[in-house]
Amino acid sequence: MLVIDQLIAEINRKSSPIVVGLDPEVEHIPAPIKDEMVRQFGNTTRAAAEAIYHFNAALLEEIHPLVPAVKLQMACYELYEADGLSAFRRTVERAKELGLMVIDDSKRNDIGHTASIYARGHLGRTPLIDGTTETVKPDFLTINPYLGSDTIDPFVSVCQEHDKGLFILVRTSNPSAGEYQEAIVDGLPLFHKIALDIEKRGSTLIGENGFSPLGAVVGATWPEEAALLRSAMPSSYFLVPGYGAQGGTAEQVANSFNEKGYGALINSSRGIMYAYRQSQSSNSPSDFAGDAARAVQAMRDDLLHTLSQAGKLPANW
Amino acid sequence: MLVIDQLIAEINRKSSPIVVGLDPEVEHIPAPIKDEMVRQFGNTTRAAAEAIYHFNAALLEEIHPLVPAVKLQMACYELYEADGLSAFRRTVERAKELGLMVIDDSKRNDIGHTASIYARGHLGRTPLIDGTTETVKPDFLTINPYLGSDTIDPFVSVCQEHDKGLFILVRTSNPSAGEYQEAIVDGLPLFHKIALDIEKRGSTLIGENGFSPLGAVVGATWPEEAALLRSAMPSSYFLVPGYGAQGGTAEQVANSFNEKGYGALINSSRGIMYAYRQSQSSNSPSDFAGDAARAVQAMRDDLLHTLSQAGKLPANW
Repeated sequence: MLVIDQLIAEINRKSSPIVVGLDPEVEHIPAPIKDEMVRQFGNTTRAAAEAIYHFNAALLEEIHPLVPAVKLQMACYELYEADGLSAFRRTVERAKELGLMVIDDSKRNDIGHTASIYARGHLGRTPLIDGTTETVKPDFLTINPYLGSDTIDPFVSVCQEHDKGLFILVRTSNPSAGEYQEAIVDGLPLFHKIALDIEKRGSTLIGENGFSPLGAVVGATWPEEAALLRSAMPSSYFLVPGYGAQGGTAEQVANSFNEKGYGALINSSRGIMYAYRQSQSSNSPSDFAGDAARAVQAMRDDLLHTLSQAGKLPANW
Repeated sequence: MLVIDQLIAEINRKSSPIVVGLDPEVEHIPAPIKDEMVRQFGNTTRAAAEAIYHFNAALLEEIHPLVPAVKLQMACYELYEADGLSAFRRTVERAKELGLMVIDDSKRNDIGHTASIYARGHLGRTPLIDGTTETVKPDFLTINPYLGSDTIDPFVSVCQEHDKGLFILVRTSNPSAGEYQEAIVDGLPLFHKIALDIEKRGSTLIGENGFSPLGAVVGATWPEEAALLRSAMPSSYFLVPGYGAQGGTAEQVANSFNEKGYGALINSSRGIMYAYRQSQSSNSPSDFAGDAARAVQAMRDDLLHTLSQAGKLPANW
C-alpha cells in the first residue's frame, strides 16, 4: 500500500484528521521530567535532549489511539546537535512502534545532488563505507520549493524508491507569507504556480484513494487560498499548520478538506503538548499526557462538528 | 570587529576570495582513511562519519593558509544523524582552531518562533534545563527566504546578538532556478525584490568595510544577474557557488566582485576535495590533501588573473 494510502487508512481507522506536532522546548516541559534528567545527566545538553525524548514518549503513549500521525519539528531536535538527533531518532522509533505515521518537518532544500543526499538522509538508506544501511525513518518530509522544480526531483525520486511522501511548502501561515509567495509567474501567484507543478508531478503517482504522495503545506490562516488550492490540486493531501496557537479556527481549516471530508491533516503543536498548563489540573503536571489527550479529543470534536456542518463528514467516522 | 569585517580581514590577509566546500561523501574519500575507520569501528555509520571527519581534518591542515573560510554542507553530515553531527561539530572546531571562518550551509527556514530555534541552534546559545550553554558555532549560516521577510527577522536578531552573519539564498545556480525566482513582484523578479529587501535590512548594520553581515547566495552560472545584484545590493557580500564542477568560470564570477575587487567569496567543493582523483599522483591518494591545496592555488591564480584583467585586483593582494 502506498504511503499516502496508509495515511488515509489510519485517518479512517481513527476517524481523526489530526497530526500532533512534537516540537518540545525544555522550558515548557514539566518539572518532574527535567528534575529526573538533571539527576541522571547533570545540567547538560544530553539532559535537555533526554527530557525532550521522555516528554515525547509519555505524550505518544496517551495520544497514539487518537491520531494517525505525529509531526516532529526538526529545529527543536538539532538545537541539541548529536544528542538532539538521538532524541529525534528514538521518538520516530517509538511513534512507529505505536503504529503512528511520522512527518519529519525539516523544510529541507538544496540543489541537485545535495538534495538527493538530504532525501536519502531523511527518507532513504544511509551509505556506509561498504554498501548501505537502513534505519527507522519518517514517512513524510517537508521541503521548501524556492530553488526551483529541478530541486524537488531528487526528493521525489527517493520517495518513489522507498515509498515515502513529501509535503511541499506552498502557502505558509506566517503574516508575511504573501510577500514572496504571491509574486506573479505565468499570470498566477507563485504559490498557485507551485501548486499546479506539484499536482502535475503527482498525477502519475496517484494511489487507490485518489491522492499522490506529493502533499502540500497550506497554512490555516489563509482560508481563501486554501479553497483555491483545494480545487487546483485535488490529488494532493494538505498538511495544515496554524490551528489553535496561530489563530486558525475549525471554520478556517474546513476549506482544506475536499467535498468528501478528505485531503487535509490539521496540525496542532503547542495547544496539545502544553495543554496541561491550561487545564484544571495545571498544578499537577504529572497528568500532562492525559491533558494532551483531552486536548486532542476537543480538537477532534471541533473539527468533526465543523465538517459535519459543512456536509463533509465521512460516513464511517 | 564585526563578523563581516573579520571575514574581509582574512580575505585580505590571505589575498584569497575563496571558500572551500567540505561536503564529503564516503564513496569519494581515499581508501586508506576508510580502511582505518572500518578497522576501528566496523562498517558502521560511525565509521563513515569518522572517515568524513578525518578527511576534513587532513584537508584543513593543508588548505588553511590559503583560504579565509570553509563551507560545510549540512546534508553530508546529517545523513549520519548523531554521528554526522558530531563530525560536523568537530570539523567546525578544528577549522576555527586553524583560524578559518566557517559557513554553515544548511539553507534553514521556518516561521517566527521556530526560525529563532534554528538560529539559536546554528549560531547562538543552547538552552539547557537551567540556563544556557555555548558551544563552538559557525560564523555564518545560509537561509532560504521563501517563507517571507518576517521569517528572516529571527535569524537577523540572533546574528546581531552573537555577532554572526547570514548568506540568504537569492539566485541559486541550478538550471531551473529562474522558474520561481523570476516570478514578478512590485515589477521586479522575485530574486531582485529579495535582494533589495536584504540590502535595506542590512543598511543599518554596515561595518567598517562597507558591508553588512547579511550576505547573499548568488550562483556563478548567472553572470548577468550577478552584475545586476552587485549594483542592487552594494553592502551585501556574495557567496558564489557553481565555480568549477557546476560549470562557472572565473570570467562568470568576476561580475560578483565590486569595482574594488571585494564583495564575493567564490566556493569550490568537489574540485578541491577530490582534486587527487584528477592529479598526476592520482594513484597515490595519500597526498590527497596536497592535491587539494594545489587545486586551491590554481583556482586562486585563475581568479586573481581575471580580477587583474578586469582592473579589479585589490592593491595589496
